[in-house]
Amino acid sequence: MKLSPSIQTLVDALRQLPGIGPKSAQRMTLHLLERDRETASSLASALSVALEKVQRCDRCRNFTELRICEVCGDPKRDESLLCVVEAPADVLAIEQTASYRGLYYVLMGHLSPLDGVGPEQLGLDRLSQLLSDEPIEEVILATNPTMEGEATGHYIAQLARQESIKVSRIAHGVPLGGELEYIDTSTLAHALGGRRTLSD
Amino acid sequence: MKLSPSIQTLVDALRQLPGIGPKSAQRMTLHLLERDRETASSLASALSVALEKVQRCDRCRNFTELRICEVCGDPKRDESLLCVVEAPADVLAIEQTASYRGLYYVLMGHLSPLDGVGPEQLGLDRLSQLLSDEPIEEVILATNPTMEGEATGHYIAQLARQESIKVSRIAHGVPLGGELEYIDTSTLAHALGGRRTLSD
Repeated sequence: MKLSPSIQTLVDALRQLPGIGPKSAQRMTLHLLERDRETASSLASALSVALEKVQRCDRCRNFTELRICEVCGDPKRDESLLCVVEAPADVLAIEQTASYRGLYYVLMGHLSPLDGVGPEQLGLDRLSQLLSDEPIEEVILATNPTMEGEATGHYIAQLARQESIKVSRIAHGVPLGGELEYIDTSTLAHALGGRRTLSD
Repeated sequence: MKLSPSIQTLVDALRQLPGIGPKSAQRMTLHLLERDRETASSLASALSVALEKVQRCDRCRNFTELRICEVCGDPKRDESLLCVVEAPADVLAIEQTASYRGLYYVLMGHLSPLDGVGPEQLGLDRLSQLLSDEPIEEVILATNPTMEGEATGHYIAQLARQESIKVSRIAHGVPLGGELEYIDTSTLAHALGGRRTLSD
């Protein structure tokens, strides 16, 4: 037996969501139709509204409904600090720490020439301009510790140095609460290499 | 930092899906906005179309876009067998076995007086009518092996017996490939109680 076409279309659409396999998509579809038609219709409208309203901040490229996002528009943020991240989720993660009060720049990806992602796609021209126009004193690189993330960070470091701006990279090493036994070797090697001398 | 309202609304709507927590909902939202606006819009329209078109089969109560679903309308199905299940997902699971060629009746739940689910909500009056009007020779109870499922099955068995129709229950026991060591005690007790004599 096949599912009826509009049910199958919904299952297929849900399967496109990250982390959703065929079984979960089917379960969600039947759940929505059986018990939660209200959620289904509010999800449909939430999707349409978000697609229509959400665009990128003119300054930092993060998602927002405004021309300039809430963070960039907040006069209480420290405009001498600029943290460069790959994705909006990274901004959320850093904001949750409540230990950073500077501004952001969201690349929406990393350099990946083979996929056609160059400096232009990441808005690095716009970033250069920010670096020369704004009173930025330190660029904090928080790209992912992957090959591409490192290469992207390296490129941005050069841009910052051209403007004589200090560049830093967030620390990598053993996570707090992590047990050495379970840490992968490259992280552990990095943590050893990056050890800090304790002061007396 | 808060997410902008239309993004937050979308996160909240996705969280209502079964098995989706706050982190996954956020990840899905950002994924859709960043990389997959096409999926987002096709999901929105799939939801609307399904809500509009999908209703219940007039005969078996399963989901369909037609008045009578494909299974009920298929002249090749054996109309002397009626399998009663709790949900559309159960029909799909049984169809996947490719070992049943009879018809179905989908209760869309089980008897649960405390939640206000009585015989009427499960369409048992309609089922009674089918039992007397159609050439059904055997009712196969495939409700879930839970308290409520068993009670519902018991109720339906009585309806069938009133029409002098044979009633059977699908077998419960140790799943194929299951190791005895890991089977819960009540299933194992049931499997022992329901043992079959082997013929020579």
